[in-house]
Amino acid sequence: MSVAKLIGVGVGPGDPELITFKAMRALKEADVVVHFAKAGNTSHSRTIAARYLSAAVTEMALHYPVTTEMPSCSDGYRDAIRDFYDAAAAKIAVHLKAERTVAVICEGDPLFYGSYMHLHARLAPDYPTEIIAGVTGMSGCWSAAGVPIAQGDDVFTVLPATLPESELTRRLADADAAVVMKVGRHLPKVRRALDRSGRLPRALYVERGTMTGAKMIPLTVKPDDDAPYFAVVLVPGWEQRS
Amino acid sequence: MSVAKLIGVGVGPGDPELITFKAMRALKEADVVVHFAKAGNTSHSRTIAARYLSAAVTEMALHYPVTTEMPSCSDGYRDAIRDFYDAAAAKIAVHLKAERTVAVICEGDPLFYGSYMHLHARLAPDYPTEIIAGVTGMSGCWSAAGVPIAQGDDVFTVLPATLPESELTRRLADADAAVVMKVGRHLPKVRRALDRSGRLPRALYVERGTMTGAKMIPLTVKPDDDAPYFAVVLVPGWEQRS
Repeated sequence: MSVAKLIGVGVGPGDPELITFKAMRALKEADVVVHFAKAGNTSHSRTIAARYLSAAVTEMALHYPVTTEMPSCSDGYRDAIRDFYDAAAAKIAVHLKAERTVAVICEGDPLFYGSYMHLHARLAPDYPTEIIAGVTGMSGCWSAAGVPIAQGDDVFTVLPATLPESELTRRLADADAAVVMKVGRHLPKVRRALDRSGRLPRALYVERGTMTGAKMIPLTVKPDDDAPYFAVVLVPGWEQRS
Repeated sequence: MSVAKLIGVGVGPGDPELITFKAMRALKEADVVVHFAKAGNTSHSRTIAARYLSAAVTEMALHYPVTTEMPSCSDGYRDAIRDFYDAAAAKIAVHLKAERTVAVICEGDPLFYGSYMHLHARLAPDYPTEIIAGVTGMSGCWSAAGVPIAQGDDVFTVLPATLPESELTRRLADADAAVVMKVGRHLPKVRRALDRSGRLPRALYVERGTMTGAKMIPLTVKPDDDAPYFAVVLVPGWEQRS
């Protein structure tokens, strides 16, 4: 009936209720369901989607070969990641050639800073693809915190915490609203950049945004002791309200 | 059982299948459902959510008093909009005081450039609130177009097309990935800014992203003849792929 294809399925930021009907249907109807996980861990994205998977589905777990602690600019990191995605795409291609539909579970939105994009870039030239948009992690965070993030003519910017401090400072000062992602060990640097750009008083620290044990506090009262990799800092815009 | 509250319900970018389970449940369980519409029009957000509304629910339609053709910087516009939201919040407060849960239907995500934010700001100090994150219009657009938008250390920026041309040009040159929103009559200016910033070759024009009759074409082949208010231009990042 429908042609076999690769589907990037956004399953949202963590709460299984924040998955869309379209994503649920794609997961239920797929022949093969693919999920990513850290080496030695069960897949977090699979946990989000678990209730929507049929018992009979074929599953393929893809375990990242390296950790986030490895410098992402190193040749070793780049080579390991490239080989990993090459091999994963080849494994998926076997199913697509056999006319099986393959759904890849993506936390958040598939084409917004997602691992799926690496598979898409390798397979989309040769196979039909479909993307099912999802609620992003950052939407989940500002919604859980109840913080209006951007309005009207606001310029909104997403900044990876990996940027140099001077770049973070300049860009934070230049945006009306911002989200700093992947805070983790960069928290002290992010705090200094917020302070220098004058944005620290409005900054909110969010950890595990839509999950149990969520933490949402002003950054000014969060110590620099520890922050998980996926923690974010929200800098809300909409300063001149009518 | 549960306390009466105001709920901002994100219903996604247009496709009724891109609504979340959480949003569906909130709409079904609400005592009152509120939707926005242009004066003289039926509500577009209500159309998205229609299949999830119970027949018995009380509905409240809020019709914007002014159009997008009025300069948003004028005093008349600001006053009319402020009075409109003041009156809407007062009408909703009557229901909240009577212990009724009020769900406000929000296209996209409630706290990301949404009308709901004006109600939230007025009512959240006095009543319990909940936000249900939704798939944004821009996620719907890049997903429908199959365009990976941002990856890794990319800086991603959302720019309202209302910005002056020099500001658009500077910010487009300064971001790895960008979305220009509310293009409408600003299309010729947006095109010039993309050209001057060197980003025109990658720019994609998207109209009615997740609806029937969607149009997704390179901006270089889209004439300046007409563009609806909600058209967007996508400038994908991720230029150096591994």
